Amino acid sequence: MNCSALFTDFYSLTMAQGYWKNKMNNRAVFEMFFRRHPFGGGFSVFAGLETLVEKIRAFSFSHDDLEYLGSLGTFEDSFLDYLKNFRFSGDLWALDEGTLIFPQEPLIRVDANLVESQLVEGLILNTINFQSLIATKTARVWLASGKGSVMEFGLRRAQGEDGALSASRASFIGGASGTSNVLAGKKFHIPVLGTMAHSWVMSFPSEEEAFRAYADLYPDKTVFLIDTYDSLKSGVQNAVKVGKNLVKNGKNFGVRLDSGDMHYLSVEVRRILDAAGFPGATITVSNDLDETIIETLTRAAAPINTWGVGTQMVTGGSEAAFSGVYKLAASEEGNRLLPRIKFSDNPEKTTNPGVKKLWRVTDADGMAVADILSLDDSGGPEPAGDILEKGGRYVFWHPGSDYRHFYHTIEGNVESLLKKRLEKGGAVCPFPSLEAIQKKVKDELSSFDQSYKRILNPHIYKVSVTERLRALKLDLIKNYLGEL
Amino acid sequence: MNCSALFTDFYSLTMAQGYWKNKMNNRAVFEMFFRRHPFGGGFSVFAGLETLVEKIRAFSFSHDDLEYLGSLGTFEDSFLDYLKNFRFSGDLWALDEGTLIFPQEPLIRVDANLVESQLVEGLILNTINFQSLIATKTARVWLASGKGSVMEFGLRRAQGEDGALSASRASFIGGASGTSNVLAGKKFHIPVLGTMAHSWVMSFPSEEEAFRAYADLYPDKTVFLIDTYDSLKSGVQNAVKVGKNLVKNGKNFGVRLDSGDMHYLSVEVRRILDAAGFPGATITVSNDLDETIIETLTRAAAPINTWGVGTQMVTGGSEAAFSGVYKLAASEEGNRLLPRIKFSDNPEKTTNPGVKKLWRVTDADGMAVADILSLDDSGGPEPAGDILEKGGRYVFWHPGSDYRHFYHTIEGNVESLLKKRLEKGGAVCPFPSLEAIQKKVKDELSSFDQSYKRILNPHIYKVSVTERLRALKLDLIKNYLGEL
Repeated sequence: MNCSALFTDFYSLTMAQGYWKNKMNNRAVFEMFFRRHPFGGGFSVFAGLETLVEKIRAFSFSHDDLEYLGSLGTFEDSFLDYLKNFRFSGDLWALDEGTLIFPQEPLIRVDANLVESQLVEGLILNTINFQSLIATKTARVWLASGKGSVMEFGLRRAQGEDGALSASRASFIGGASGTSNVLAGKKFHIPVLGTMAHSWVMSFPSEEEAFRAYADLYPDKTVFLIDTYDSLKSGVQNAVKVGKNLVKNGKNFGVRLDSGDMHYLSVEVRRILDAAGFPGATITVSNDLDETIIETLTRAAAPINTWGVGTQMVTGGSEAAFSGVYKLAASEEGNRLLPRIKFSDNPEKTTNPGVKKLWRVTDADGMAVADILSLDDSGGPEPAGDILEKGGRYVFWHPGSDYRHFYHTIEGNVESLLKKRLEKGGAVCPFPSLEAIQKKVKDELSSFDQSYKRILNPHIYKVSVTERLRALKLDLIKNYLGEL
Repeated sequence: MNCSALFTDFYSLTMAQGYWKNKMNNRAVFEMFFRRHPFGGGFSVFAGLETLVEKIRAFSFSHDDLEYLGSLGTFEDSFLDYLKNFRFSGDLWALDEGTLIFPQEPLIRVDANLVESQLVEGLILNTINFQSLIATKTARVWLASGKGSVMEFGLRRAQGEDGALSASRASFIGGASGTSNVLAGKKFHIPVLGTMAHSWVMSFPSEEEAFRAYADLYPDKTVFLIDTYDSLKSGVQNAVKVGKNLVKNGKNFGVRLDSGDMHYLSVEVRRILDAAGFPGATITVSNDLDETIIETLTRAAAPINTWGVGTQMVTGGSEAAFSGVYKLAASEEGNRLLPRIKFSDNPEKTTNPGVKKLWRVTDADGMAVADILSLDDSGGPEPAGDILEKGGRYVFWHPGSDYRHFYHTIEGNVESLLKKRLEKGGAVCPFPSLEAIQKKVKDELSSFDQSYKRILNPHIYKVSVTERLRALKLDLIKNYLGEL
């Protein structure tokens, strides 16, 4: 794999040169987190990790890259010499792909020198933000469909080539049963799917002949596109005529609706298919679907078997970006790792300082209760109260540093979710298959109460901080305000 | 360049096998057009052509690709053999990149055999839809900024790697002055830009020291990021302290606001900079900007010099896809090229049949009056009334096939906009530079009345059809309805 380290923001390189020249290339810990769920949702899905780790391991400057940088007149030869051998040599921690994630939670931790941790920022955010956006969107679509059969048809409206390929991967993670994108099928070993196009129907003298030619060729997977001329008066009638032979030969068939009112048409088409004696014939719908439209149709019990979803699912539709950011959590000063905080003029942008752990607490039935951020004093002994254990009783605070808090005895499980994925730049463990990741998403969704999964106006899942993390944050804020 | 021909929808391949097996690989003409402007706008910008043509020329199946296709159990060996030597060998017509475009207009025409024209569908739509979306968004941002200085900062929120790279290209076309994405800078020869990150400021014992270190390193391009702690109480004060030395040495400096209210803060910061004797110090703003926010700030005369725009510009923001489609316009039957039409259950989805030309008509002052679709009987003599000429008087019809029409004498210019780009698969002419394309966008924008360029609720620019095209469409509809 090739991954040019020029895939970074210009300021990352100018700052890197600054750190390098000022001999400030000390240890720094950055964390990626996000600020709010996309789509007004109650959960998000973490995705893109394997892609990211592969790219970080390949992240380097070619001779050409360095020549280009030299041509900009901003970088010194000695710094370019240093970049010649640049490889990410730090540690990277991350959640499992497919984990349900919530605002403020550390998703990724980079523990490396300042230059390295800065140069990978763009790559991390670009990869994780996009795939998490699409996995989240697809999980919403899948839930709205009643955990049904969702096909990803996004290639033609996706944001560029990788926008299509990565979206196919992330959609599969989020619950899609396959993709129309053949290259994605090859690359990620996911099923490829499809029906027929209007141009097929239009290329034959009649719709019936077009259907017949297709059924002759693909008797095992015939789905007739019935809306080229008129879905009810023409399309479904011809589908019945041609499908009759398929059924006679022990096969099945389906029809696909691609325009018009999906509720009205699916009911009518179902009635016609049933009346013709084909209760097993399936109905697929497509046409700019998203989770809101799908939920409306599911609630109305529209007789739809399969959903073909493209544009809205592979781009996010009304919301096209995941709000992940990458912030300094701690940095070394005289051999000590000191917590760092960023304030900014928007109070909600103030960060949680220090290197952190993320815990998921469940109840006795295995249902998620809350996620907890604690301090992780890596290397040294863990501080009291920042290691959570089953049976323990703790006070947990709202991360917004106000008065809200609650006491909780952990009756179910508690798990630390961040795991090491790269150690000194080398991979620590193999990655699970995409099927396994998809299963994880579905399992996780089952362990969260329905109220968090509502499409509209969901319940807010609790993400809290330990007493000690809260104290550190308040201390740093107080010190800083005292200085102003 | 590598471009796997697996980057296509699965149904394109199953249908291609069908055409090939049924010896239906006759000539077909497809056209790409779109149905409505994104962002509720009054114009769109055509972009992505050079990228597309490069990819189409490289579009082929590798040994691996064919092995993968074979493994699916859907394709016959003899068809896979045929694909081994597959190359696009048809003609491709398209508008110039940077042309302002409107719904219903043919943007691209593919004239090839059925198999080839089908297999490139996904590639065409993916490339043109995305780049046109982003070029359009950026042109809106650029107009909203008062034709100001717009920097594209989108890498971290873009939709994957190519989502970032192609977006940098398209944003530059739409009017951005440069990008933060260094790889895009190298690849497309566009300026790379940037300021500093919060982590730079947080990595020094104090903000002042961070600013000083940066100014020492980059005295010619110092823009201080002033919101890490507090923009007014701390950031701008330190910028003035450190900037003083820069100005003393004949340099300039700037500050960047990245949070808080941009109007209030920019006014206050301007006041402080002026009072300190630095009227030349610039103010850059960023923080989830889009054309609506920028227009509000420009109208309020907020003293902002430069706009850093990321997420919303490189993804489209609230609208993440361009609605381009690719439809059969004509196909050969017994040595004659016959017009084709698609009806569908949504009347607005009925296509304009036949191979078409697109004309732009201007008035005596060079301002755009209307765009006209006419029939192009390629090969044969052009039909009367379908070649438009200066001084001619014509009746033009609303493309919706209703009664609306108008008479017009062409007093300015009239130009046929579709040009041949590939002939039998080979390139016809070199492509202009991105600077030239950006200039074309700006020139075209000047030739359209202000009312079409309003951000909110713009005037609808006229796209009409000739008498003859209208008659053909009505005929085909009538014939078809008679058959039902």
